[in-house]
Amino acid sequence: MRMALGQAQAAAEAGEVPTGCVIVDADGSVIAKAHNQTEVLHDATAHAEMIALSQAFAAVGNERLNGTTLYVTKEPCPMCAGAIALARVSRVVWGVGDPKRGGASVFGIFEHPGMNHHPETASGLMEKESLEVLQSFFRARR
Amino acid sequence: MRMALGQAQAAAEAGEVPTGCVIVDADGSVIAKAHNQTEVLHDATAHAEMIALSQAFAAVGNERLNGTTLYVTKEPCPMCAGAIALARVSRVVWGVGDPKRGGASVFGIFEHPGMNHHPETASGLMEKESLEVLQSFFRARR
Repeated sequence: MRMALGQAQAAAEAGEVPTGCVIVDADGSVIAKAHNQTEVLHDATAHAEMIALSQAFAAVGNERLNGTTLYVTKEPCPMCAGAIALARVSRVVWGVGDPKRGGASVFGIFEHPGMNHHPETASGLMEKESLEVLQSFFRARR
Repeated sequence: MRMALGQAQAAAEAGEVPTGCVIVDADGSVIAKAHNQTEVLHDATAHAEMIALSQAFAAVGNERLNGTTLYVTKEPCPMCAGAIALARVSRVVWGVGDPKRGGASVFGIFEHPGMNHHPETASGLMEKESLEVLQSFFRARR
């Protein structure tokens, strides 16, 4: 999560909403790290998690990421939560939650019986730091 | 939608789950057309809608797709529905619904008050043909 936070800080420096994501394989090796790039790519779907998932598919040469853990500084949105479930990521850990439109806490995507895969989840890891990087970014923009 | 169905048929011929997607701009010009490519790309997120959204962002040079209509043969999954809302697509039209894990009918993503954008939706356009292309594909695989 410390590495994901580093990605979030890099995003802020690049003028992007600061969320960062890291994916590690079953051995704990980092196979993907990314931050939000919606501005530079002119792509509303270029969230940290989506970019990291693409890197991870390329790293394992497979569209299934069983055994991996995804760390992200902010709770995934519905798009990212859906993508994580499709990718069969085994475990998802986030820092700060999103009570307004969180893919897990609001939409329940990770545990919905209709979904084919249900990742384990954990929240609140380095929550304060994850929130702080977002708050300073938006404070500076006001 | 006829063009989206053509994309779905092309997907089936390529051994991909046959869903097809077309995006038209406010003038009715086609700015994106794609089909599912999860197999060939080894990417579980390479749904027709996601690929078409990327094409559309590139076509308009902008991460907002206001004024566009997205046609897809099958109801978007939660990932694609979240992406469509983030992209601010104005209208979404699908053929066959997905009562098990539909982003709209099950998860209510397009109308959720927490989401920043609420596309108009319409369903059931060329539903029979959209279902038939899916059913023939899975029938042949059994």
